[in-house]
Amino acid sequence: MLPGVLSATSPGRGKADECIGDNAMGAGNQQERLDPEWIAGFVDGEGCFHVALNRQPAMRTEWQVLPEFRVVQHRRDERLLKQLQSYFGCGSVTVNNGDRMEFRVRGLKNLTQVVAFFERHPLRTRKQHDFRSFARVIRLMMNGDHLTKTGLAHVARLSLAMNRKRNTSASRILRDCTPDTARTR
Amino acid sequence: MLPGVLSATSPGRGKADECIGDNAMGAGNQQERLDPEWIAGFVDGEGCFHVALNRQPAMRTEWQVLPEFRVVQHRRDERLLKQLQSYFGCGSVTVNNGDRMEFRVRGLKNLTQVVAFFERHPLRTRKQHDFRSFARVIRLMMNGDHLTKTGLAHVARLSLAMNRKRNTSASRILRDCTPDTARTR
Repeated sequence: MLPGVLSATSPGRGKADECIGDNAMGAGNQQERLDPEWIAGFVDGEGCFHVALNRQPAMRTEWQVLPEFRVVQHRRDERLLKQLQSYFGCGSVTVNNGDRMEFRVRGLKNLTQVVAFFERHPLRTRKQHDFRSFARVIRLMMNGDHLTKTGLAHVARLSLAMNRKRNTSASRILRDCTPDTARTR
Repeated sequence: MLPGVLSATSPGRGKADECIGDNAMGAGNQQERLDPEWIAGFVDGEGCFHVALNRQPAMRTEWQVLPEFRVVQHRRDERLLKQLQSYFGCGSVTVNNGDRMEFRVRGLKNLTQVVAFFERHPLRTRKQHDFRSFARVIRLMMNGDHLTKTGLAHVARLSLAMNRKRNTSASRILRDCTPDTARTR
């Protein structure tokens, strides 16, 4: 499993949690501190809320649910990605691909904080639609619902609604897990 | 000449001026009003400051300088582009290409207002570098400096500094207009 990846059996306890603290948001040099509305605008343009569904036959539901929040920029703006990391008090800044870097947040506790931020500072593009589905996935996962077939199917439906491109994993889950008559958590 | 294009002989008096007013910024439904920091963040991700240099042999300097500020989005966010138009009190929202729409501001008076906005609400990515060059071009044009070969060469240098991709027009101007020993305004 990748570092920081949410396991369906150990939610919210990946490496991605390591930098979060109750007072972490807003940490860092005050002069460097980003305005929350600026962050909302920037994320409206450049951010991504994504829920990956990875086939893991060893897991109870056979699927790993992996939500993440990501902002990708050219490496010349790596400093800005680190300011975002400092603001949210969690996540990592690493190479995305070639000359592109990414600020990425995983882990349920961190993502709950990210969701709360974007509920206080709403997105204004249609990305808000994706965000709302993402927020529902995080809440389902906080309840452990993704560990049941019914809950997993719910996550898959939300994932399908978020991603405009074809999502074969979500379609497969819906085929296998709806209706949920055979197994419970 | 395209509608709203700044002519080197009639600066700041194109069609793009038609909707600007001294109190226009902030016009529109208050409930819909965008936060200026949100705008700065969104433009940091999605905006473009551009200075086109178009060969126009009939003009005194033989080059037309055409600065513009642009935000391009999928047509599903056309409403948001119209909110930007309402906020700035100028510019147009039209089809960019296929399913993409653009909010575009031309005209020196309008762009002076745009520049003032982004000086109050600074960009935070490296796009700020492009913006600073753009702002210098607008100030040079407000002085009419682009109507001299020396001033035009200055604009060309700033344009070269802004655009990471090859800019043959700016290079040609610099070849033809530097040093300016032959002609004055």
